[in-house]
Amino acid sequence: MSKQKVNIKDVAARAGVHPSTVSRVLNSATRAMVSRDVADRVQKIADEMGYARSSLASGLRTGRSFTIGVIIPDLSNPVFPPVVRGIERALSAEGYIAILADSDNSQRSERAIFESLRARSIDGLILATAHIEDPVVSACVAENLPVVLVNRTVDAHDVTEVINNDELGIELAVTHLTELGHRNIAFLGGPADTTTGRDRRRAFERLGRAGRFHFYSEICVDCNAFTEAAGHEGMAKILEHRREFTAVVAANDLLALGCYDALAERKLSCPAHVSVTGFNDMPFVDRLSPPLTTIHIQHDELGVQAANLLIEEIRDDSAERRTVLLDPDLVIRGSTAAPPGAG
Amino acid sequence: MSKQKVNIKDVAARAGVHPSTVSRVLNSATRAMVSRDVADRVQKIADEMGYARSSLASGLRTGRSFTIGVIIPDLSNPVFPPVVRGIERALSAEGYIAILADSDNSQRSERAIFESLRARSIDGLILATAHIEDPVVSACVAENLPVVLVNRTVDAHDVTEVINNDELGIELAVTHLTELGHRNIAFLGGPADTTTGRDRRRAFERLGRAGRFHFYSEICVDCNAFTEAAGHEGMAKILEHRREFTAVVAANDLLALGCYDALAERKLSCPAHVSVTGFNDMPFVDRLSPPLTTIHIQHDELGVQAANLLIEEIRDDSAERRTVLLDPDLVIRGSTAAPPGAG
Repeated sequence: MSKQKVNIKDVAARAGVHPSTVSRVLNSATRAMVSRDVADRVQKIADEMGYARSSLASGLRTGRSFTIGVIIPDLSNPVFPPVVRGIERALSAEGYIAILADSDNSQRSERAIFESLRARSIDGLILATAHIEDPVVSACVAENLPVVLVNRTVDAHDVTEVINNDELGIELAVTHLTELGHRNIAFLGGPADTTTGRDRRRAFERLGRAGRFHFYSEICVDCNAFTEAAGHEGMAKILEHRREFTAVVAANDLLALGCYDALAERKLSCPAHVSVTGFNDMPFVDRLSPPLTTIHIQHDELGVQAANLLIEEIRDDSAERRTVLLDPDLVIRGSTAAPPGAG
Repeated sequence: MSKQKVNIKDVAARAGVHPSTVSRVLNSATRAMVSRDVADRVQKIADEMGYARSSLASGLRTGRSFTIGVIIPDLSNPVFPPVVRGIERALSAEGYIAILADSDNSQRSERAIFESLRARSIDGLILATAHIEDPVVSACVAENLPVVLVNRTVDAHDVTEVINNDELGIELAVTHLTELGHRNIAFLGGPADTTTGRDRRRAFERLGRAGRFHFYSEICVDCNAFTEAAGHEGMAKILEHRREFTAVVAANDLLALGCYDALAERKLSCPAHVSVTGFNDMPFVDRLSPPLTTIHIQHDELGVQAANLLIEEIRDDSAERRTVLLDPDLVIRGSTAAPPGAG
């Protein structure tokens, strides 16, 4: 039984590295973050000292529940199931289980879920619901409860986050449209109180002010939710202005679907009259009429990395907080074409 | 504190009714199942005796966790998020929380999840994954763990189930097609080891053998999963036969999407050459190219009723096991039309 007394800090001390390095080496998902020489040395020392990463055994000693809370804003948004699958797969490989809850895009509901999860003694939390100012994130930090943000993040705290490179995504969409010949481009944005909403809009504005296209603030609209209904309403507002435009960059795919509806109401055809780009590449958008040109984000990888980084923080509370930024791709489909009258 | 000693059986004895009647009356979601006279009388007696249904207080006395396991086969199938939302809403109204897990259509994974949930002392289980012979359901029955099946069911056990009327659904699809003039209809079925797969196929065969259309067993194919890939493969098999057909009834929407792909590969147009019907009316099928004619099932209501019946069984283990059968509707969209050459 003396072997069980060897802990991660003993191994780290013997190897002359930080405990988080030991944690990374012993987790197959994060091992590649450490140089091979160091990884081999740490593994050898851990083996010699009889230190094996045994989740369940260490749980029995520390009173851990091996249960992770996962809060997402909208289970019916098809972008989240692939992220959740990545989270579940990575957690289950390490003996953890997810309690998944859906806040229905409501911050009040998010707080109630958080209280309920906390009462069930979760070991940590993965939040896909973060708002720029977020009391749940603040509560986690104040209580020292391990938390990882996925997809969206916050401004105030130094918290581990696994997010998409939104600036690159908007640049890919805009470049695609300007290469097709579009000069007057509208923007259908997300909620301004989320980083995905704010940062995608800022990236769009920056490109416009840099002269990449004609930027008109009256045809840049923030929607109050990332839903089809909000996109429909936002696009109707854009169409009320007399400002001419031939393309719309939507800040996510559901907003783009609402945009389709608003265009159809005005008998405007996509892409013959107006080109539309989405953001996320959620399942089934390749089958829409027209198939949606969009920005593909790495759904599965967002989930896997969030889960692995959370486990690392649970195992080693001295692990440094990190920002992982994943690069998206442009997927060109049928909703974008040259502007009317071009060529 | 003496008030807390009044339990549901005391109220039932004083009112001269079964404890499950008291449980139904005191739950707003099930109160309508009881006649108003009885409901008023039971409520009055409960009030007089100081019996209040306090989930959390009774949990503290009985060691309940107020946690329900929910296992679904495939979170990326958009039919399940609306069912899960119904479950979560109904559970949360009664102070319960769901631990949601995705078995990825694997019975082995379902068993592993079940063991893991059991170790976390759940109060009950909602299964959307049932196979006709299902060791997880048998284990629940053997251990007296409250369980409710949703969408699919089993043959062997007397378990509460909330399911769609699949026979009616297939009849609605077939009647729609025969009214359009189709006589030669193929069937793209689900896994034969699930009741949804088996019962939808049986309903189709029965209508064929009753002379409602020309039934040919070689163009009735069972797919090994309810996925787009399996539907694509199954439809390719149907197309290999020389048997003529002008319509396909698919046993669910994802199979119908795979069917679209197989038809497109053969340069067959839907609905000009072949009409296709789905089953479920999952989100976004109204936006497909072509929009899918399908059978709308009551997703939200399946979830709400499953959750309420489970809570009833948890509160009163003498509650009778029930089968709730919800009727579906036909939703006609662009994937069905008269057969080629008709009219």
